[in-house]
Amino acid sequence: MQPLYAGNIRVVLSHTTHPGNIGAAARAMKTMGLRHLYLVNPRHFPDPQADAMAAGADDILRNAVVCTSIDQALQDVVFTTAMTARLRDISIEVKTPREAMPLVLQQASAQPVAMLFGTEMSGLSNAEMGRAQLLVNIPASPEFSSLNLAAAVQVMAYELTVAAQNYHPVAPESRPAAHQQMEGFFAHLEKTLYEIGFFTTQNPVRLMQRLRRLFARARPEQEEINILRGILSVTTEYNARLKTRYQQEQQHVREQQDVQKY
Amino acid sequence: MQPLYAGNIRVVLSHTTHPGNIGAAARAMKTMGLRHLYLVNPRHFPDPQADAMAAGADDILRNAVVCTSIDQALQDVVFTTAMTARLRDISIEVKTPREAMPLVLQQASAQPVAMLFGTEMSGLSNAEMGRAQLLVNIPASPEFSSLNLAAAVQVMAYELTVAAQNYHPVAPESRPAAHQQMEGFFAHLEKTLYEIGFFTTQNPVRLMQRLRRLFARARPEQEEINILRGILSVTTEYNARLKTRYQQEQQHVREQQDVQKY
Repeated sequence: MQPLYAGNIRVVLSHTTHPGNIGAAARAMKTMGLRHLYLVNPRHFPDPQADAMAAGADDILRNAVVCTSIDQALQDVVFTTAMTARLRDISIEVKTPREAMPLVLQQASAQPVAMLFGTEMSGLSNAEMGRAQLLVNIPASPEFSSLNLAAAVQVMAYELTVAAQNYHPVAPESRPAAHQQMEGFFAHLEKTLYEIGFFTTQNPVRLMQRLRRLFARARPEQEEINILRGILSVTTEYNARLKTRYQQEQQHVREQQDVQKY
Repeated sequence: MQPLYAGNIRVVLSHTTHPGNIGAAARAMKTMGLRHLYLVNPRHFPDPQADAMAAGADDILRNAVVCTSIDQALQDVVFTTAMTARLRDISIEVKTPREAMPLVLQQASAQPVAMLFGTEMSGLSNAEMGRAQLLVNIPASPEFSSLNLAAAVQVMAYELTVAAQNYHPVAPESRPAAHQQMEGFFAHLEKTLYEIGFFTTQNPVRLMQRLRRLFARARPEQEEINILRGILSVTTEYNARLKTRYQQEQQHVREQQDVQKY
């Protein structure tokens, strides 16, 4: 793989239970030339079992970044794929590793990207999934589709290597918004929808999932996020002005009523 | 994967050191719908570590066939791929998993095939390699190419599944010779070459490797092996007749010499 590309690719393991899997994942990464490992709230790390399973990949463990939140691990990332073993009801686009890896490479040619893996037993939460622009599902037996965590990392990293061998650079999108900008926008959007009273008739969680999906497909640029947030700000201000004017008018009506009363 | 195909595919692990790897390999197999595991002289099996790593694939461990030789594990097999991490000096054809798996499927449509994996530290011996018709090398980082055994099984089984999804049956070769017929032929050939005095000027081990490579490419049918062994038998008989005649002539010469002497 192009060293430049590998330098822009993060493997993010969220809430890993068994330290041996962290070590085995590090080894799987190293066999395919990947080196940036991020761990979100691992149950045990560092740990002798992780070291044992890493074999010769102890440098990756030593340089692993331990984070307290998924957002911290995705700081500055412009494109995130998330592994899923099952197809969800509300889902972002789902691709196979073979379909997904050329897209990952294309993004990684200029800016940080992430491959996100959930916990051993239950995978990623819906909130974590919502951080991804693309879900990846490894084709597996319908009777027993649960790959070991490190085995899934190995398959993904292997597909990335094969894709890199066949990869012809194309111009990446211009200045896609980074993870924290997208999250800032979603928070602003949600707050705004509360303020304007939109959620009185809608389930906020499901609706935000649908909106995340929409914007994951759109892949907004930084400039576009600024525009969207500008619109949100104005919406709130407009709403605030309306409220103020309404309160003033009510006050005025009450005063008049008071005048008429006496 | 077509159940019929999976039924004809064996994963053969030779001289595995760590029982955890056997369990993890069983799990990797099961995620991709494979079920026939053969173990050649495993250091520890059965073993609680194997059970732990198998997770839900304990049925594969329970049905695993433990063998005392590679030839026993390859009994009735008509096509064998062997994993290699490095490219050898005398080598059979080497392909990537992606190139190899359609060939494996094609063979598996009618008769047993095997995917052979060596021991953790040193891989397969040259003698074991010689049993294969095809070597498979997983593309990996030149600095650190050593995949964990179960991770290699996972990548191969995954590629097999993807290949199966894109597979269009073609007529397999008619009645390819089974492993034991090939080995019978090689033993016969080597014995014959000794008898006719061919090895006085050649290194027997290297020469037999070259001949194995040649016949691996040829993929002989059962009938052709019969013909070849017929030729070997006649060669030996011819040689034996020559020897007898030579001895008789020598006897005759000596007798004549004896006559002339007195």
